[in-house]
Amino acid sequence: MKRREFFKQASVATIGAAAAATLATPAIAQGNITWRMVTTWPKNFPGLGVGAQKLADRITKASGGRLTVQVFAAGEMVPGLQALDAVIDGSAEMSHGAAYYWQNKSQALSFFTGVPFGMTNRELGAWVRYLGGQEIWDKIYDQFGLQGFLSGDTGTQAGGWFKNELTGVADVQGLRFRTPGLGGQVWAKLGASVTNLAAGEIFAALQSGTLDAAEFVGPYNDLALGFHQVAKNYYFPSFVEPGLATEVVVDKAKLAELPEDLQEIVRIAAQASYDDVSSDMYANDPRALQALVSEHGVNVRQFPEEIIEAGAKASMELISEIREGGDALTKETAESFISALNLLRTRTEGTDMPFLVAREKYIKYE
Amino acid sequence: MKRREFFKQASVATIGAAAAATLATPAIAQGNITWRMVTTWPKNFPGLGVGAQKLADRITKASGGRLTVQVFAAGEMVPGLQALDAVIDGSAEMSHGAAYYWQNKSQALSFFTGVPFGMTNRELGAWVRYLGGQEIWDKIYDQFGLQGFLSGDTGTQAGGWFKNELTGVADVQGLRFRTPGLGGQVWAKLGASVTNLAAGEIFAALQSGTLDAAEFVGPYNDLALGFHQVAKNYYFPSFVEPGLATEVVVDKAKLAELPEDLQEIVRIAAQASYDDVSSDMYANDPRALQALVSEHGVNVRQFPEEIIEAGAKASMELISEIREGGDALTKETAESFISALNLLRTRTEGTDMPFLVAREKYIKYE
Repeated sequence: MKRREFFKQASVATIGAAAAATLATPAIAQGNITWRMVTTWPKNFPGLGVGAQKLADRITKASGGRLTVQVFAAGEMVPGLQALDAVIDGSAEMSHGAAYYWQNKSQALSFFTGVPFGMTNRELGAWVRYLGGQEIWDKIYDQFGLQGFLSGDTGTQAGGWFKNELTGVADVQGLRFRTPGLGGQVWAKLGASVTNLAAGEIFAALQSGTLDAAEFVGPYNDLALGFHQVAKNYYFPSFVEPGLATEVVVDKAKLAELPEDLQEIVRIAAQASYDDVSSDMYANDPRALQALVSEHGVNVRQFPEEIIEAGAKASMELISEIREGGDALTKETAESFISALNLLRTRTEGTDMPFLVAREKYIKYE
Repeated sequence: MKRREFFKQASVATIGAAAAATLATPAIAQGNITWRMVTTWPKNFPGLGVGAQKLADRITKASGGRLTVQVFAAGEMVPGLQALDAVIDGSAEMSHGAAYYWQNKSQALSFFTGVPFGMTNRELGAWVRYLGGQEIWDKIYDQFGLQGFLSGDTGTQAGGWFKNELTGVADVQGLRFRTPGLGGQVWAKLGASVTNLAAGEIFAALQSGTLDAAEFVGPYNDLALGFHQVAKNYYFPSFVEPGLATEVVVDKAKLAELPEDLQEIVRIAAQASYDDVSSDMYANDPRALQALVSEHGVNVRQFPEEIIEAGAKASMELISEIREGGDALTKETAESFISALNLLRTRTEGTDMPFLVAREKYIKYE
């Protein structure tokens, strides 16, 4: 998006939020406030959609019903990708999704979900909470009258389902691959013919041969969609999605109108949800992967080194383009992210990684 | 501890809690409840003690002061290592510490803090929340009228400060090493002469030559204690403490007497704290390490492979001894922990680790 369009859209949004605050009052039933949370997830979507519902239930319970949160799955009130606009225009008070869905509002938002070869979920949490990330995120959403909080994380995702085995970068040329967002841009740099399709359309496209490969989330989410029936090679890890954080976004003015105790409940419930969803994904991804391997004959593979190396170069190129070509806030976000990553990786790669390497090598329990 | 002593102690504790519930009522001021949180940490102890204060403040704020939590540092009401007993005997309503401090009550409690070559913090959260860990933990603390929740994690710790460089297992023979708990038992199996000293005594012992080496937490906590002035070799990672979870423990009967909204606030505030303390440690450990290296000339080293391999064997031996020699609940805990670890590591070592290896190899940002 051009700067001019961005600020035009930003000011429309700000006016919209201000108007909504003046005209609309929160729905009140028996003295209690009811908030509508619109989500980008299908009903009961493992980990993420379930996490949105649990977050809403916890806010309702912790507030003794004084702040009751009603959840709407994608399409129930508005289509999933209009969730944020529903909060901006005042038809909902909260949205639950992933910040990178709103790249058309600001490219900087990608960094609060995760970027190719970027941060793991522990690193992202440390950046947002202790190394200045939240403050920049607040500046971005402030333009739209919004406030965002981390609400979950998938952890490092799967690299995708491939009909044929990959031997090197040559196999990526012209590969018809469903992989959205910045990850898709990295694969396009490697020569893939990248497309985006809604989750419900991927299976048929793989089956009919319109697609050669598709990347979605990880075993817990992928198992339910049945990709293993039409592609047997499951590659790990997704170097373009080393973590994918979800967000809960709140109408900032309506949040400020709440009594302080309810504001605090929203904040701590969101942070608890970040841990809860991550724990859910960590526990259930490997269970789903075991089922895929033992019951469905899936081949678990790692990408050839040549592809990983080319993917790393393409990722650095892409981040540099964003860093240099973005508006002021995008540049500030990228600088802060990279500076935090450079610090945090000294710990992750210097302490956590050697531990995992040693444990893998020497520890075996029956 | 022998089985007989364990059950004797358990039943005394249960009687104590029941008596406390009958005789004592929570302190009430202006219609509000005030709870006392006794901690095992020095005042303002980085990450962990600060996290206990933040957790207390959040509960107070989220409850609008209806549940006000007062924090007592170690020694302010009772010595740190009597914090749990203070809750059991009713002189406090909450304690904040690490479950492995109470190994004398049940060996099983070590598993809820972390064990040598065991789980990382993400794995521990997944086990406790989604793979049955909390349910077993509840059974253990139920014997004492308590309920425990995770409240923080240091992540993988530093391996310790060594006056001399280590070249192999031979250098460990007779090494006078301050390293407590199960980690100390592993180092003892390698031939070290293991001692435990309170945090405040370590520096002097290193300086006088009574100790050759000492392990405490990690850079963020160690920097303040000045070990770098008397030992220049700082080894990573601690394979005996791949994660160290803290807990907040609540008097179970008093928790059940709270209105449901306040109970929920305690639960979600504890879970938010687990994420918050972990983020704090992830952000601030590497900052402290940079200061140690650039300002204090510390040499960062990794343990020789021979020591890591011997440490892994000793750790497996120790866990087997606990698994086979413990009481019924310890055995159940160990089985659940190992089964969860075997599942979770397929993800951590199969997805997270290869990502970190690739990122370390190929990604460089100025």
